[in-house]
Amino acid sequence: MQTVKLRNDGAVRTVEMNRPEVLNAFSVQLMDDLADAFLDATRDNSVKALILTGAGRAFSAGADLGEMGRPAPPAKHGFAVLLDAIVDFPKPFFIAVNGVGAGIGATLCGLADFVFIANEARLRCPFSSLGLTAEAASTYTFPRLMGRQRALWFLLAAEWLSGEECARAGLALRSVPLADLMQVVMAEAQKLAALPLASLTMTKELVMAQLREPMRAAILAENRGLAELVGSPANREALRAFREKRPADFTGL
Amino acid sequence: MQTVKLRNDGAVRTVEMNRPEVLNAFSVQLMDDLADAFLDATRDNSVKALILTGAGRAFSAGADLGEMGRPAPPAKHGFAVLLDAIVDFPKPFFIAVNGVGAGIGATLCGLADFVFIANEARLRCPFSSLGLTAEAASTYTFPRLMGRQRALWFLLAAEWLSGEECARAGLALRSVPLADLMQVVMAEAQKLAALPLASLTMTKELVMAQLREPMRAAILAENRGLAELVGSPANREALRAFREKRPADFTGL
Amino acid sequence: MQTVKLRNDGAVRTVEMNRPEVLNAFSVQLMDDLADAFLDATRDNSVKALILTGAGRAFSAGADLGEMGRPAPPAKHGFAVLLDAIVDFPKPFFIAVNGVGAGIGATLCGLADFVFIANEARLRCPFSSLGLTAEAASTYTFPRLMGRQRALWFLLAAEWLSGEECARAGLALRSVPLADLMQVVMAEAQKLAALPLASLTMTKELVMAQLREPMRAAILAENRGLAELVGSPANREALRAFREKRPADFTGL
Repeated sequence: MQTVKLRNDGAVRTVEMNRPEVLNAFSVQLMDDLADAFLDATRDNSVKALILTGAGRAFSAGADLGEMGRPAPPAKHGFAVLLDAIVDFPKPFFIAVNGVGAGIGATLCGLADFVFIANEARLRCPFSSLGLTAEAASTYTFPRLMGRQRALWFLLAAEWLSGEECARAGLALRSVPLADLMQVVMAEAQKLAALPLASLTMTKELVMAQLREPMRAAILAENRGLAELVGSPANREALRAFREKRPADFTGL
Repeated sequence: MQTVKLRNDGAVRTVEMNRPEVLNAFSVQLMDDLADAFLDATRDNSVKALILTGAGRAFSAGADLGEMGRPAPPAKHGFAVLLDAIVDFPKPFFIAVNGVGAGIGATLCGLADFVFIANEARLRCPFSSLGLTAEAASTYTFPRLMGRQRALWFLLAAEWLSGEECARAGLALRSVPLADLMQVVMAEAQKLAALPLASLTMTKELVMAQLREPMRAAILAENRGLAELVGSPANREALRAFREKRPADFTGL
Repeated sequence: MQTVKLRNDGAVRTVEMNRPEVLNAFSVQLMDDLADAFLDATRDNSVKALILTGAGRAFSAGADLGEMGRPAPPAKHGFAVLLDAIVDFPKPFFIAVNGVGAGIGATLCGLADFVFIANEARLRCPFSSLGLTAEAASTYTFPRLMGRQRALWFLLAAEWLSGEECARAGLALRSVPLADLMQVVMAEAQKLAALPLASLTMTKELVMAQLREPMRAAILAENRGLAELVGSPANREALRAFREKRPADFTGL
């Protein structure tokens, strides 16, 4: 695994995205390594809970724009397999949002069992500002976590939500000072890891069994929507404006 | 359009219910004009967002009791078509609750994407006190916005919720002083209107596609329930008490 | 009815679980008496609302461990019929949580229309710590009341939630000082009892009709999960530790 670092503390596996130089942007390699990390933690009977976090000052800046426009490197798993591995992950899954999360760095939070976020962190869904649409089942998970009004605003308006706002809205279970974040999450994860795995996975399964089918349906519908919008006039204007370092102008679009 | 006033601010269309002398009660004419307003804003490519509000001191007092008991004037669209036009409305739909909302003036809020409510405003579902039941899919939308316990209390108890309570409960995205209401809503709507319409409608569609069928099923079930209760002993006692200007007595009913 | 006490205040029926000496633990007899209480209140047209509460200092400690391991006394109805009678109960159903609620004493709250809880009370789902899993449709009701993250934590972690936390999380409609609890709940129930029963039951039916099937499916899935875990290594270790008055050790389980 080139782009993630694994650590075991007893039965708690920490998976740290480790591309701090690009704010842990999701490259093809990172997606493959994350998929392997979830698949391995699924199979490894010594693992009772998983914490996902990011190295450096960001959680994840989202898609790796540096890879966009270039021929994609060949993927071992790809984004779809990563999402499947997360949706199917049978053990308690914590996210520790240690800094900025954008795009997939925000929408992943909808798939986690427990999100802990630093007060100093913030999340954003930039989809509209790129002429694109939402992903990772966020059109299903966010309305259920935050209420439809707040979720649709978050998905449409491309505005930032602070750590405290995420906790108040229900997108995170709790917000804590960044200095305490990893210690708090680890302590909570260890509480679960002291309990029998068969109970943890059975109860999670009972909750998730009802949700996996609509999550998967949302991912497929989002993919179709995204395919329609990639290369559309608004998406082209957004990319042009980005290259020309000017605000995009969506007048008439 | 006799009973609504339209205004365009750039790509934001404001639809103002304009029967202030009867607190914007829903007459057949108002329902037809509102249906036309939503259908027209759906088709008009220059419109990227719609704000619904009321003229005068009320948002809407609900059904027009003045028309009840008289032969209904012929409808161009009717209530069912209005609800369909709202449920199918593909662009961001804001409600600015500028004053009292009762009955449909409250339940409509469950269908909006974003409700902004004046601190001084308040909402009420008077159904039980009239011997009737809920409408406009509120038996589906309210539990998802407010939680089932709070929603069922609001639907059953015929009590008022203040603007602040609506925001706290999740029925409104935000409550603000009445003096600021229209300015705040317009500023938020303009944020969305600066973004590409194709992204706004695609993301809204992804969220709503999962909800439209249960919304429509709820409307049909509510209509059947309402048909059962209109003219029932409790409904007759409520109307009699209203005419006789006394509290209704539902003892034994 | 040996284990419940009934009282009528006008059209409000109070059902008090009356085994204070064992913290109102759910024996076979209590389950049968409660099922009869719900079935009778369903049929009795003089009853417009039901309040469930507990005698003494606890709401309910959950399953009667004293009966476990002994041959079960023959049941008239049993737990499944009790749950059906509650899920199908057509009239407003209040719970007044007057003290500790554990296991079924906590999960029942997910089936109530309105939960009022004493500030001094607290709820706990001990399932994981017993090597077991959740019941009474709580894997369906809790995520919808509290949000999935908070609900899954409550179901997995076997931690206590205070009365105030329950209200903040949405599991209870309101928390009040214990000294005021019964007076507050009775006053709210009397508000509904002054309204026509046909409206109360119709509106509740419209809300519940969409939820009963997933509630029943959750109960069946939970029963299958429970059957798998009863007698499992973790469950046996939990019971052994309980008998030996030591903390359970789930290392490797």
